[in-house]
Amino acid sequence: MPSVIVVGASGYAGALAARILWRHPEFELVAATAREDAGRPLRDLYPHHRVPLALEELDLERAARADAAIVAYPHGSAAGVVAELLARELRVVDLSADFRLRDVGAYERWYVPHPHPHLIAQAVYGLTELYRAQIAQAALVACPGCFPTAAILALAPLAQAGLIADVVIDAKTGVSGMGKQPRDRNHFVTVTENVVPYGVGEHRHMPEIDQELAVLGAPAPVTFTPHLLPLDQGELLSCYVTPTRALEQDELERLYGDRYADEPFVELVATPPGVRDVRETNVCALHVHADARTGKAFVFAAIDNLWKGTSSQAVANLNLMFGFDEGLGLR
Amino acid sequence: MPSVIVVGASGYAGALAARILWRHPEFELVAATAREDAGRPLRDLYPHHRVPLALEELDLERAARADAAIVAYPHGSAAGVVAELLARELRVVDLSADFRLRDVGAYERWYVPHPHPHLIAQAVYGLTELYRAQIAQAALVACPGCFPTAAILALAPLAQAGLIADVVIDAKTGVSGMGKQPRDRNHFVTVTENVVPYGVGEHRHMPEIDQELAVLGAPAPVTFTPHLLPLDQGELLSCYVTPTRALEQDELERLYGDRYADEPFVELVATPPGVRDVRETNVCALHVHADARTGKAFVFAAIDNLWKGTSSQAVANLNLMFGFDEGLGLR
Amino acid sequence: MPSVIVVGASGYAGALAARILWRHPEFELVAATAREDAGRPLRDLYPHHRVPLALEELDLERAARADAAIVAYPHGSAAGVVAELLARELRVVDLSADFRLRDVGAYERWYVPHPHPHLIAQAVYGLTELYRAQIAQAALVACPGCFPTAAILALAPLAQAGLIADVVIDAKTGVSGMGKQPRDRNHFVTVTENVVPYGVGEHRHMPEIDQELAVLGAPAPVTFTPHLLPLDQGELLSCYVTPTRALEQDELERLYGDRYADEPFVELVATPPGVRDVRETNVCALHVHADARTGKAFVFAAIDNLWKGTSSQAVANLNLMFGFDEGLGLR
Amino acid sequence: MPSVIVVGASGYAGALAARILWRHPEFELVAATAREDAGRPLRDLYPHHRVPLALEELDLERAARADAAIVAYPHGSAAGVVAELLARELRVVDLSADFRLRDVGAYERWYVPHPHPHLIAQAVYGLTELYRAQIAQAALVACPGCFPTAAILALAPLAQAGLIADVVIDAKTGVSGMGKQPRDRNHFVTVTENVVPYGVGEHRHMPEIDQELAVLGAPAPVTFTPHLLPLDQGELLSCYVTPTRALEQDELERLYGDRYADEPFVELVATPPGVRDVRETNVCALHVHADARTGKAFVFAAIDNLWKGTSSQAVANLNLMFGFDEGLGLR
Repeated sequence: MPSVIVVGASGYAGALAARILWRHPEFELVAATAREDAGRPLRDLYPHHRVPLALEELDLERAARADAAIVAYPHGSAAGVVAELLARELRVVDLSADFRLRDVGAYERWYVPHPHPHLIAQAVYGLTELYRAQIAQAALVACPGCFPTAAILALAPLAQAGLIADVVIDAKTGVSGMGKQPRDRNHFVTVTENVVPYGVGEHRHMPEIDQELAVLGAPAPVTFTPHLLPLDQGELLSCYVTPTRALEQDELERLYGDRYADEPFVELVATPPGVRDVRETNVCALHVHADARTGKAFVFAAIDNLWKGTSSQAVANLNLMFGFDEGLGLR
Repeated sequence: MPSVIVVGASGYAGALAARILWRHPEFELVAATAREDAGRPLRDLYPHHRVPLALEELDLERAARADAAIVAYPHGSAAGVVAELLARELRVVDLSADFRLRDVGAYERWYVPHPHPHLIAQAVYGLTELYRAQIAQAALVACPGCFPTAAILALAPLAQAGLIADVVIDAKTGVSGMGKQPRDRNHFVTVTENVVPYGVGEHRHMPEIDQELAVLGAPAPVTFTPHLLPLDQGELLSCYVTPTRALEQDELERLYGDRYADEPFVELVATPPGVRDVRETNVCALHVHADARTGKAFVFAAIDNLWKGTSSQAVANLNLMFGFDEGLGLR
Repeated sequence: MPSVIVVGASGYAGALAARILWRHPEFELVAATAREDAGRPLRDLYPHHRVPLALEELDLERAARADAAIVAYPHGSAAGVVAELLARELRVVDLSADFRLRDVGAYERWYVPHPHPHLIAQAVYGLTELYRAQIAQAALVACPGCFPTAAILALAPLAQAGLIADVVIDAKTGVSGMGKQPRDRNHFVTVTENVVPYGVGEHRHMPEIDQELAVLGAPAPVTFTPHLLPLDQGELLSCYVTPTRALEQDELERLYGDRYADEPFVELVATPPGVRDVRETNVCALHVHADARTGKAFVFAAIDNLWKGTSSQAVANLNLMFGFDEGLGLR
Repeated sequence: MPSVIVVGASGYAGALAARILWRHPEFELVAATAREDAGRPLRDLYPHHRVPLALEELDLERAARADAAIVAYPHGSAAGVVAELLARELRVVDLSADFRLRDVGAYERWYVPHPHPHLIAQAVYGLTELYRAQIAQAALVACPGCFPTAAILALAPLAQAGLIADVVIDAKTGVSGMGKQPRDRNHFVTVTENVVPYGVGEHRHMPEIDQELAVLGAPAPVTFTPHLLPLDQGELLSCYVTPTRALEQDELERLYGDRYADEPFVELVATPPGVRDVRETNVCALHVHADARTGKAFVFAAIDNLWKGTSSQAVANLNLMFGFDEGLGLR
């Protein structure tokens, strides 16, 4: 049974990855690391995850004995750990932004100087539905951001068909997407009974969406604005596409139906999805609407930002990297 | 002191209008009517409004002695009452959709057969900031829908300058906008920790937005999709404008600053507003952003759907109709 | 593989029972019935349960072929269906109140005239931790109400030791406990940013708590008041016990530790539990505190009202009735 | 017009006091102070308060020119500022705990060493309904904690009549009661869809409740446990009294009716209040229930913890200190 460590398990993403792996039928979770909380059972921090394993400080020598790692460090500090683990021949799924952008210049404009740019070329972008074959062969998978996951799944069929002339993406997200560190903006009193746009014109998921849509054939840059909502988990993207030619509802449904017919974790739904419909699942629910009034095509995508948007997608990728069924441990 | 009745005061909008009038320094609230709840103090239904007045059934003969009425009936049934009240020489502010659309054909396509089409021409569209002079002279004011109020205020400066080539409006609203009648879709369990698009491609506020934007010079139809959020009051509209020519941040700010410089209830804010910032006020908060990356102009508008979007705007209009300061009783 | 039907699967409790059974490794869910929604896939009503089975009208002849039934009808109407199913030799777990009270007079004072009083004696009260052996042999199990489940688990060790002189139970519950039928009191706008006591002095779970605590040796009646909170699932009971003699923290912890040492679904926790800690689990989390200041013993109990409080406890009981491990399908 | 400063206006309590004073018809708010946020308009921190005044660092020489101050510092650090302001002949309303406990020993057991114990004797406990006459003459008013405000108003009539043998107070509070500083426990994700007891057996409001109930004639100590709820403002106290003799509903209602007949901000209500009923008001709503089943008397009290529980009660007291109507600026 392959052994896995979760590096950085005190945040939401790492803790959830640990929870999924703890109950996984084919992986053994051998360690979960954290700096400040080392020594505490993960269960103390996240009672509902029910993972009794105690957090420990990262020890690279012991880590070297594991087969794989999920790394959940902040951008900038992830790359160093990833390099160490790769050097010790672990297969790595990285949840940070450090290996998502293929253009190191783009990375450095949006983030920080890149400490290990030579590793970027090795990384496979971990959007399971797009890069399944490459992920299976990869030593390093860079898991997509939560917004890009939903955005790219929502737009890929139209992009690949060359049907996107322009697109506006209006995103709504729960608070867990902003991380566990207490701040004014995630204080309950700030968030409840409120909704507010943020990162207007400068959100770091934009270059990532642009990169992948460009690969698929859509024109970049896209318009993308996230909004913070009073909910803990869940992300809804409303995509308003100006198509390159007129589209009927039938054609739109057929396009998406064909593209996603064999995808176990993409669901095409007949009415617009709510984020509760996919809560705590690896599912991306999509609804398409050819708007006769305006000629636009609307695509609504709902995911759980912590699951499909982060940690369950990471485990799905890990499954592929070890030859298991993609959905193992995720249903 | 002019006397006012609120017709249909058991719903959210009528009850709030009654609350505002009950404490208004220059109007006397003489009656609040309701069918099912007649006989009960309004306070029983809405403790926090603290209006001890008992609801009563509508008696047109007694109503005839009042100077004005705010009518808060559903579309279709409002028109009949409005006609009766106008015949008795009351000045009427109607909160329904019955007199908002100038084209009776459009009304009948989106709603029901119009019972009093001859009255449509008399009605002034009650968006205070656009039709202040006409409202002051009107016998009948048709208060805008909550979404059109925010949408038109958000887009009027660009529309009037001929700068809108295309616009996508993504709206987020609290649950009170859907009314007081208990339904599956406003059940707490349905709404909490959820966000869901609704009325996709068919929301009845679309023709109203189109009508007013067309008057201002923008191309119709616009793209408009509302989403239901887990909050009680508040509405945020995110408007993504493709401009007819390049726009800089400075010019955009100047355009809005000039247009709204003298408006007491429009606030231009330096960061994107949250709906809590305008809760229980007659204020529309606007934030503009010229997006260098995409060339689009973003406008974010926040209102309280029950206040500026409905009942406080109704009282502002009533103030104007009786020669009072527009903000009387609203601060 | 034993076959099970869920009778009344359109409400929260029945639908959740169907979801658990749909994925259960040893039961086959062969039908889920509903009146109004017959013909619709259960998934249409509850997308997040992901149960594709179509609801159907109850057909007693076909039902006769099943091995067991979970009945989720309202009190008063459940008893008739239960009688029919028992007559056809199904083993039945009833979620209603119809067979919980052993004294038909008490039932009729708190509910309605009992249509099948002769069946009461056959019923085993389905609080798993108290009546495990009898449940395993029963043809009819009357599942406890959600509040009694938490209250009795919270107080049983003290009651059995004769240590309760008086007890005040203050309960806090999410909205799902009030059912799916839309009403004023479960409208999102009524519930959000609010907390309100209800059923003061008259809640129907009181006689049930009294009955079971009396069996265990505690004096009845108890003081019990529920409060409605802005959350969907979850129930927290704060129990303030005046003990018959002084109690130290050590003794209290030992008492509970001994009583629940072998219970797979009772967790003693070192800090007061929140309802999120047990969300979507069959767990009851308990925290005890001997209050030196006042001499009282506090017990806090958290459950998920729909899971341990209703549907997962029902399946645990069904597991026992068929000789399976109690937790099968519940982890 | 008396001039007032708010010292410590960047937290919830001070900011709200500044908002109320900014619109007060008889006080002039001349300064609002803060350390970290000095220089920023208060409006930047609290847009919905709409107070354009810029925060400034406290300058005692300039402060000396004001007539009064509301001090909103944390316990321990308030006393020093209060002493300085009193020395400069300002009348002071202090929102901290520093002058609430008459017994310096009790203060030091529950809080920290007291820096100015000699001032304690000067302070009047600012529960308006109990100490109105003394407040009017006071130079220093120590505003009660939010829980004591509700608890004492709920229990005073029974306590004064010698009718309390024992009482259990179960309190539910919104998150704003825990302050503005971001922490794990007020992170949105921690709070939403949760309810959790806290400060069990050790909450610092207990000695304050005990002190005042003892003055009124009730036996101390009382049982008091607060619970954190997913709401921003509002506090509900459920008080379960074991009376010294049997009480009927009539007598209970008469007792409370007589005691509070002339109180402008205490409302006796016929059904249990929700916290929304008193949101953003200076009102304490009370409901009494003589429970025939158990012989206990229940009292439910709802307040807004930031208004009546803190800042509006402070302004009511300031009104009294300057000879104004108690409710000036509070309706």
